[in-house]
Amino acid sequence: MARVFGFLRRPTVRIELPRLRPRVDPASYPRVNLEDLTPEVIPYLGQAAYVQLAVFEEVSDAIEGAPDVPSKQRLTSPAGKALDKYERLVAELRRLVDDPNAVIGPFTPGIDRYRALVKGSDWHEQLLSVYLTAGILDDFFTLLASGLPGDVSGRCIAILRADTGRDTIADVLSEAISADRMLGSRLALWGRRVVGDTLLVARSAIHLSGNPASDEQRIEPVFTEIVAGHTRRMDRLGLTA
Amino acid sequence: MARVFGFLRRPTVRIELPRLRPRVDPASYPRVNLEDLTPEVIPYLGQAAYVQLAVFEEVSDAIEGAPDVPSKQRLTSPAGKALDKYERLVAELRRLVDDPNAVIGPFTPGIDRYRALVKGSDWHEQLLSVYLTAGILDDFFTLLASGLPGDVSGRCIAILRADTGRDTIADVLSEAISADRMLGSRLALWGRRVVGDTLLVARSAIHLSGNPASDEQRIEPVFTEIVAGHTRRMDRLGLTA
Repeated sequence: MARVFGFLRRPTVRIELPRLRPRVDPASYPRVNLEDLTPEVIPYLGQAAYVQLAVFEEVSDAIEGAPDVPSKQRLTSPAGKALDKYERLVAELRRLVDDPNAVIGPFTPGIDRYRALVKGSDWHEQLLSVYLTAGILDDFFTLLASGLPGDVSGRCIAILRADTGRDTIADVLSEAISADRMLGSRLALWGRRVVGDTLLVARSAIHLSGNPASDEQRIEPVFTEIVAGHTRRMDRLGLTA
Repeated sequence: MARVFGFLRRPTVRIELPRLRPRVDPASYPRVNLEDLTPEVIPYLGQAAYVQLAVFEEVSDAIEGAPDVPSKQRLTSPAGKALDKYERLVAELRRLVDDPNAVIGPFTPGIDRYRALVKGSDWHEQLLSVYLTAGILDDFFTLLASGLPGDVSGRCIAILRADTGRDTIADVLSEAISADRMLGSRLALWGRRVVGDTLLVARSAIHLSGNPASDEQRIEPVFTEIVAGHTRRMDRLGLTA
């Protein structure tokens, strides 16, 4: 655990963020053997659960900060669905341990620190952060889930792949960007800004062998796939990733 | 509408708050004819819905401010259930109007102002406010619902009477009060403090005849019943109402 958070505080591996859409279709990349990267099921569930709780809290915070009732209304579905995913992941944990909170607890300082970094300085930046970072982390934890043992693998994939309700967040942002070109430029910068910190959180969840060179090689295809998903979300908003 | 909010800003009728448990069993009071007091169904639904959204937002805010994961975990159920009630009340509105938000919108300034008044200065005061004020407003809107016309009456009662999940809030508070006598004294004061503003919100939802004397007489039994519920909630926490 200490090593994981040590890593979060002091990244030693530079993460290359593609500034352009990847030229190669990510589907053509060789799939990595995820069993090598997937952490133990219990810490996996603890971290994945807390990520969903964090998404819920950020969307709820955006509901509270929304300028009007229609905007609040459009955010209730993503809040409810993140809460539901959190509760389902905690239920998975409860099948394996008596006290899910004891598993989740150690992940909170790192993720809370991360949340403060990517929160954004206004409502639109906050919404963009939730939309992009939750998208990246959902994709990432879904990929990892395929390396989990037995039935829990399929159940976690089903939980994480269930509707997020975040289409409405994208709609709110698209409309705001269409109406205000300056906002679009600012959000494009912000959208690029949050990726690095999010990939560090993702990396902290990966089981590393201790050999930095081979670890890098194993992780690269996963991150390529994840960044492709990020690029699609930026595209949807009309922003250049 | 202007009259309603005018009232919220400048109450002209003094509301007597019993400081002791009512000596007469509230069940023995003659029940008021609620049809006289119940507002039109559309504004009723709009205000009741926004109250549930406000409860959701306050609980979510308390989740975000919770000191640890177990405390967050205990608050997720009341957050989810308030959100569900909000969505069900909006669904009722949607049966009657094309744009529920247009109905809800006018109620937001008054309720948001109220929320700021009763928010409390720390996490325990915030939790106590949610527990007490949501309890009062649920009781009140349930009473009013019995005066609504047709099927919507029963459906609203079913929505508002469904489990609130707030037992866990009471548990969190009881434990904190048991562990800290000073906190109990402070919360007892705070619990009395929030009632007056909450009854003003309740009153703003009532259909008034315009005759202050007869209005007072019609409202009194409703408020007696509501204050009895408040006293039970304070009792449960070991606080004197």
